[in-house]
Amino acid sequence: MNPAAVRLDTDLEPVLAGRIERLFHVPFLVDLGARLTVARSGLAESVLDVAPRHGQQDGFVHAGVLATLADHTAGAAAGTVLRPDQGVLSIEFKVNLLRPATGSRLRCRAQVLRPGRTVSVVEAEVFSETPGTAEPRLCAKATVTLAVVERPG
Amino acid sequence: MNPAAVRLDTDLEPVLAGRIERLFHVPFLVDLGARLTVARSGLAESVLDVAPRHGQQDGFVHAGVLATLADHTAGAAAGTVLRPDQGVLSIEFKVNLLRPATGSRLRCRAQVLRPGRTVSVVEAEVFSETPGTAEPRLCAKATVTLAVVERPG
Amino acid sequence: MNPAAVRLDTDLEPVLAGRIERLFHVPFLVDLGARLTVARSGLAESVLDVAPRHGQQDGFVHAGVLATLADHTAGAAAGTVLRPDQGVLSIEFKVNLLRPATGSRLRCRAQVLRPGRTVSVVEAEVFSETPGTAEPRLCAKATVTLAVVERPG
Amino acid sequence: MNPAAVRLDTDLEPVLAGRIERLFHVPFLVDLGARLTVARSGLAESVLDVAPRHGQQDGFVHAGVLATLADHTAGAAAGTVLRPDQGVLSIEFKVNLLRPATGSRLRCRAQVLRPGRTVSVVEAEVFSETPGTAEPRLCAKATVTLAVVERPG
Repeated sequence: MNPAAVRLDTDLEPVLAGRIERLFHVPFLVDLGARLTVARSGLAESVLDVAPRHGQQDGFVHAGVLATLADHTAGAAAGTVLRPDQGVLSIEFKVNLLRPATGSRLRCRAQVLRPGRTVSVVEAEVFSETPGTAEPRLCAKATVTLAVVERPG
Repeated sequence: MNPAAVRLDTDLEPVLAGRIERLFHVPFLVDLGARLTVARSGLAESVLDVAPRHGQQDGFVHAGVLATLADHTAGAAAGTVLRPDQGVLSIEFKVNLLRPATGSRLRCRAQVLRPGRTVSVVEAEVFSETPGTAEPRLCAKATVTLAVVERPG
Repeated sequence: MNPAAVRLDTDLEPVLAGRIERLFHVPFLVDLGARLTVARSGLAESVLDVAPRHGQQDGFVHAGVLATLADHTAGAAAGTVLRPDQGVLSIEFKVNLLRPATGSRLRCRAQVLRPGRTVSVVEAEVFSETPGTAEPRLCAKATVTLAVVERPG
Repeated sequence: MNPAAVRLDTDLEPVLAGRIERLFHVPFLVDLGARLTVARSGLAESVLDVAPRHGQQDGFVHAGVLATLADHTAGAAAGTVLRPDQGVLSIEFKVNLLRPATGSRLRCRAQVLRPGRTVSVVEAEVFSETPGTAEPRLCAKATVTLAVVERPG
């Protein structure tokens, strides 16, 4: 089975769910191999299968991969609580790199901390996991500040 | 001419210059297409030719690309003021996304703000530029905190 | 009863509990009126009774008061998991100001996210509360990175 | 001479200069003893005479004092490029604590990095200085993100 075909876990109405899902069809996320797995009100999750090309000098996943996944999943989480004519743009993010990411898969969980009319704040955690082994390890935690913007229909 | 063959602008002694240059030979930076162009004491610069695969939903370069370039170039800058038996690891970084990156090339300039025995702090600016047009635009500014660690020979 | 005399809620051994408690006897925290209320392994809580002098231009508590409380309570939380010959120093912190602090009391809860040999990462939430009214409101959330340092006996 | 009476160095038109100056008349900044010294387009500077009550456990100025001065001076700098019916509110800030603040005076210099219609980004540096001695030392550097808001007349 094509893993990209796994159905999205969502409780959003279909049009909104589709909009959030398409956020992960943008070039850089497709290029990295990230997929959205969960989109619920105020929450999004994604996964990325680690490949050699994601690595840095010590063989761990590069911080930039973790940051990309955190930022983008945060944007998806923020998007779940918007009106149809709104979108989000990251203003800034800060990420703490807590442990090396050594597993074969990254999982990111983003949760809206403060939905706002003009600014949303989202927290995103990135876990490293290896199927069949012990529990996931928290590798990075990010706080993402996003502007809520009007989107043309 | 192969752009990757452009000679590094450096005033470092050759062994150190080689170590810094090899930091850009790690898989994720090679995968993105980033190259180190300058490595001087306390300073590093890099460039990345923008390709469609680097984009996000609005056609601009994804924030994760900017963050990766900022973090990695900051690591190179921090590395220029280390002893041979030391290396750096990013502890955290924060990036403000100031303007959309719309040009055909990114240029990152990282400068050590505070070299430390155990912790270094580096600032990195990412500019978007289009050869033949007006001046570069500052698109992102990051502050990167790195741990100075002992490296086995 | 003198509120400063309220007994600390702690499960730490007495010498360590005393060390953590004394962290709140430093001049600036005494000057602000902050008090430590909880010190458990990996966790610290503090309170501050809001006075007019803590205000900013709109009559809310100044962000600097929230940041001070978050940073210092984070240091206390990090201190609960140290050896007796160690101390902590803040390297950096980032605080998101989520809602105006309008209540008569601030309460800060800090929890260690990543205890490390040389670097600890702590999250701190600051709530605004008014006794007798509805539940506390989350006003600020901070991430604090601290260096673990050797302390002379 | 009363140091508070030192004239503000400004090139702003008088009504705007007065508005920026009054930002330093809010309770918490007066309580700390901070004063605005420079307000030019995109730039603000302030000073604070260090007193024992500003200290932390090692006798240095508490990080919360540095953060307050950085955040507030950043707000003043952002204010210099606003329209009369606008104000700013800090959304978030991040501060790196670079060296202990040991001098008898703090000086903060804040500069607008990106003035925006809805969001401004300002950098603020805090220096520690001791009159009659060597040059100021950079103790802290902050990045402050502010929302531009409409203010009733």
